Amino acid sequence: MQLLFLGTGAGMPSKQRNTSSLALKLLEERGAVWLFDCGEATQHQILHTTLKPRKVEKIFITHLHGDHIFGLPGFLGSRSFQGGDETVEIYGPPGIREYVESVLRISRTHLNYPIHFIEELDGLVFEDEEVSVQAAKLDHVIPSYGFRIEQKPLPPKLLIERARDLGVPKGPLLAKLKAGEDVLLENGRLVKSSEVTEAENKGFIVAILGDTRYCQAAIELGSGADVLVHEATFDADTQKLAGEYGHSTIRDAAEIANLASVKTLIVNHLSSRFLPEDEKKLVKEMRKVHADSFIAHDFDEFDWKIHDHALKKK
Amino acid sequence: MQLLFLGTGAGMPSKQRNTSSLALKLLEERGAVWLFDCGEATQHQILHTTLKPRKVEKIFITHLHGDHIFGLPGFLGSRSFQGGDETVEIYGPPGIREYVESVLRISRTHLNYPIHFIEELDGLVFEDEEVSVQAAKLDHVIPSYGFRIEQKPLPPKLLIERARDLGVPKGPLLAKLKAGEDVLLENGRLVKSSEVTEAENKGFIVAILGDTRYCQAAIELGSGADVLVHEATFDADTQKLAGEYGHSTIRDAAEIANLASVKTLIVNHLSSRFLPEDEKKLVKEMRKVHADSFIAHDFDEFDWKIHDHALKKK
Ligand SMILES: [Zn+2]
Ligand SMILES: [Zn+2]
Repeated sequence: MQLLFLGTGAGMPSKQRNTSSLALKLLEERGAVWLFDCGEATQHQILHTTLKPRKVEKIFITHLHGDHIFGLPGFLGSRSFQGGDETVEIYGPPGIREYVESVLRISRTHLNYPIHFIEELDGLVFEDEEVSVQAAKLDHVIPSYGFRIEQKPLPPKLLIERARDLGVPKGPLLAKLKAGEDVLLENGRLVKSSEVTEAENKGFIVAILGDTRYCQAAIELGSGADVLVHEATFDADTQKLAGEYGHSTIRDAAEIANLASVKTLIVNHLSSRFLPEDEKKLVKEMRKVHADSFIAHDFDEFDWKIHDHALKKK
Repeated sequence: MQLLFLGTGAGMPSKQRNTSSLALKLLEERGAVWLFDCGEATQHQILHTTLKPRKVEKIFITHLHGDHIFGLPGFLGSRSFQGGDETVEIYGPPGIREYVESVLRISRTHLNYPIHFIEELDGLVFEDEEVSVQAAKLDHVIPSYGFRIEQKPLPPKLLIERARDLGVPKGPLLAKLKAGEDVLLENGRLVKSSEVTEAENKGFIVAILGDTRYCQAAIELGSGADVLVHEATFDADTQKLAGEYGHSTIRDAAEIANLASVKTLIVNHLSSRFLPEDEKKLVKEMRKVHADSFIAHDFDEFDWKIHDHALKKK
């Protein structure tokens, strides 16, 4: 699993940061990529990466502000033009369907694949054998949502050669051992499941939030997560504005990460009022509260490996 | 007057060419900029120029395909955010109003200025003391328009000192001379208007066309123009595709320029199938038919000076 930040700015594009978009790369896990938000020129950002639009299987839209959706029609059209022909699921607040359908209709954009819209974003919004996604409403000036993606524990792995060495014959006994049962061999020897399987691997938990004030739902979505992606539009000097405009300060984000016992915090949606030279100070402010934390930049990529459960910046 | 190309590609953005947008800079003439089409990420392109979004007074949309309009909502929102508070006139085919209004409504984008929509694009669509704009329908797969912008002749300039030297007193006689009348002085001397005025300056004529097949309307819009901006999505090898998809080849564009007795031809809307190394061949193909012609690239700027009536690449 990798997180690739495509746009990390707030409100308007700047030369440093594009408007919001984030790719959750699940290529090893399911051969797919999930997008979170799709600000204008997300497809342009993708041109500078190895992402294939046809691999994008799901798009999660946190809220309907322009800096989170204005790149969606162009992305969908180009995905079709570039050979994408499999269904895309779009999860977003009520209105996302009307937006996409009316823009595609007026611009006569024909897609070679169907779109499936999911506009009910409370609780479990997706689940299959590999992963589940929970959504909850945050606290912004318009309905804005956060998503918690949990990978299911991987089934224990059967160590076939070790089982053979212990004299387990091919066949149903192997299946029992894999399922966690101990078995008695014909020669009277007891083989424990734990002797011939590798321990179960805990899956990752990633929480990706839309624009929000400091709020309880953010803590719940992030609870115990390996990674929390939280907005940080303002800082201590502009705390008042954060409240007025429905946003968080970088310190708010760090406190949420702390209260939620998150491992790694990554903040995005930074105001263009922050200059590159302000960043050291911002990082210091954030790490005082939550040590394992990063400010995201466009094209930053973070990699999470199942065996060490740590997120590393590529 | 300057022409600044912001996006010169067709259909989808590429690393070399963004989707369509062209700025007609009329800063000296009227302190304003007019935009022609507004593909996705036009506002991003503008970040790399000296253009001020609040100076954009009119936006002409040739047709409703996504590669010509997907940057419009973002541009309008950012123009407001950056302090633009004067009316914008948007000229476009029926549907442009519904597009802009529904996207702004769903994304809760509030503008600090009104938009005035003009959806009837036949004949004279704008005229004031300085300039007129004619529109006509071209031949594409959906309604697509071209615009002919004519600057009115500048009024003759009165050479006050020369009139004084010839003995013309201050007052109404000067006004008559300026208006083209000859006058008889009290001392019996006849002063000709032509002696004390500088010849009238012909204004510029610029024709900017949307996507089109080779068609008669293109010749009429371009007739005698100083500059014709014409699409060239295909070339001789792909002539068949041009007809099927409602586009022109680069040779079509050159022939139109020739038949319309245009001074300078600039082609845009080039397919990404053309590689930078193909360009020499394309230019040769085009100049065989119309010598004074250019292929536009993103950020190319052309400057037209009233006194030499020639367009020069900056
Ligand atoms: Zn935002
Ligand atoms: Zn086009």
